Amino acid sequence: MKVVARNGKEMGEVKLFRTWSSPYALMIVWALKLKGVEFETVYEDLANKSSLLLEYNPIHKKVPVLLHNGTPICESLVILEYIDETWSSSTRFLPEDPLARATARFWAKFNYEQLTTSVYKVYVSQGVEQEEAKGHALENLDIVEKQLTGKKFFSGETFGFLDLVFGWIANYLGIFEETGGVKLLEEKRFPHISAWKENFSEIPVIKENWPDREKLITKFQLMREHFISTAAAK
Amino acid sequence: MKVVARNGKEMGEVKLFRTWSSPYALMIVWALKLKGVEFETVYEDLANKSSLLLEYNPIHKKVPVLLHNGTPICESLVILEYIDETWSSSTRFLPEDPLARATARFWAKFNYEQLTTSVYKVYVSQGVEQEEAKGHALENLDIVEKQLTGKKFFSGETFGFLDLVFGWIANYLGIFEETGGVKLLEEKRFPHISAWKENFSEIPVIKENWPDREKLITKFQLMREHFISTAAAK
Repeated sequence: MKVVARNGKEMGEVKLFRTWSSPYALMIVWALKLKGVEFETVYEDLANKSSLLLEYNPIHKKVPVLLHNGTPICESLVILEYIDETWSSSTRFLPEDPLARATARFWAKFNYEQLTTSVYKVYVSQGVEQEEAKGHALENLDIVEKQLTGKKFFSGETFGFLDLVFGWIANYLGIFEETGGVKLLEEKRFPHISAWKENFSEIPVIKENWPDREKLITKFQLMREHFISTAAAK
Repeated sequence: MKVVARNGKEMGEVKLFRTWSSPYALMIVWALKLKGVEFETVYEDLANKSSLLLEYNPIHKKVPVLLHNGTPICESLVILEYIDETWSSSTRFLPEDPLARATARFWAKFNYEQLTTSVYKVYVSQGVEQEEAKGHALENLDIVEKQLTGKKFFSGETFGFLDLVFGWIANYLGIFEETGGVKLLEEKRFPHISAWKENFSEIPVIKENWPDREKLITKFQLMREHFISTAAAK
C-alpha cells in the first residue's frame, strides 16, 4: 500500500541505503534531517553490496537509495527532488517560481557533470595530467565563485536546494585537496565560496553530520593510491 | 520585466535557439508545440556560433536555448521541465505524484547518461570497438524494452514526459544505425519499443516536425567520417 505523506506525522516508512563516506548519500541525510523526516539508515559496504541494494538499484547498483514505504528511489538529485515534493509542508528546497527552479536545476547539473568531475580528476591524477586537471577545476570553481558573489547562500539570503547540491565543497573538497596534494580553494581567489562555506557549515544539521575527517582522509588516501597504481599498470 | 505566463494567451516572448538537426532541440520544439506555445525559431550554425548563443549559454555554448521574455534557459531537460511548469494550464508532461515524477526523472537521466551515450559510441566507432559498443547499446535498449512492456506510452495509456525524452529513438536511432552500419532495433528483440515507436510517430506534432531523413543521413554520415578519421589520426 502506498502512503502519500504530506506532513511530518504521516511519513510512512523511510530507509536510506548509504555508505558512511559517500557525499551523494550525505546530501540525502541532510535533506531528510532538514525536513524533519525520521528514517532508518542501512550502511552498505560497496566492496560487498547487499542483495537488497542490488534489488533496489539494479541499474546503477549505487548508494544512495531511498526506500519509502517499500518503493526504492535512486539517483541523488532525483531523491532530493522527491524528498522536497513529498514532505512539502515544511520549507521547500526548490523555489516556487519556474525560472528560479530552472536556474537551480541548471547549476545542479553543472555541479554533477562538470565541477565534481573536474575536481575528482585532480584527486585521482598526478604530474602533468594533474596540472591540467587543476586548471579545469579552478575554471569551474571560478564559475561557482561568480554565482555566489554578493550572496549568503546560492539562492540569496536563505538556504536551499543548491546549497545542498554544492554542500560537498564545504568538507569533501578539503579531503580531495589534502589526499590529492593540490590546493584548489585559495581564499584570495575564492572569497565568496570561502564565506559561503562558513555560512553553510554553521547550520546545525550540516555541522552535526559530517563524517570524521581523519577517517575520510585515510579512506580517500587509500583510494587514490589504488587509482594511481591501477592507472600505472595499464 | 518578467511576465509569468500561465495560459496560452499570456505567454510572453518565446524564442528557441536550435539547429535543424539536433535531437535535443527537437524535443523542445515538440514540447512547445504540444503546449500550444507560439515561438520564434533562431537557427544556429554550430561551426559558427552567433554572439547571442555565446551570450545566452556561456557555460556550454550549445543549443537548445530557450529565451523567455529575454531570460535564457539552457540544458534540454531543464528547459523541458521549465516549459511544463510555466505553461501548466494545458496537459502536464510530468505526472503530479512525487513517486511517478521521481521515476520519470530517473529514466530521463538514464536516457541521457547511459542510453544515448552507448548508441552514440556505436555510431562513431568501427571494428572491435564498435562490436563492444553495440553490446552495451543493446543491453541499454533491453532495459528500455522492459519499461515499455504492456504500455502504449512510457507512463501507460497517455503520452508524457518520457515519450518526449526517449522520442529520438523513433527517428534518430535509425539514422545512427544507417550511418554507423549497425542495426540495433530489431523488431524481434524489441517488440515493445517498435510498437511504441509507431504510437509515438503517429502523434501529429511529432509526425509533422521530423527533420528531412535524407538530409540527416548526409549530415550524420559526414560527421561519422570526420570522427573516424580524427580518431585514426591520433
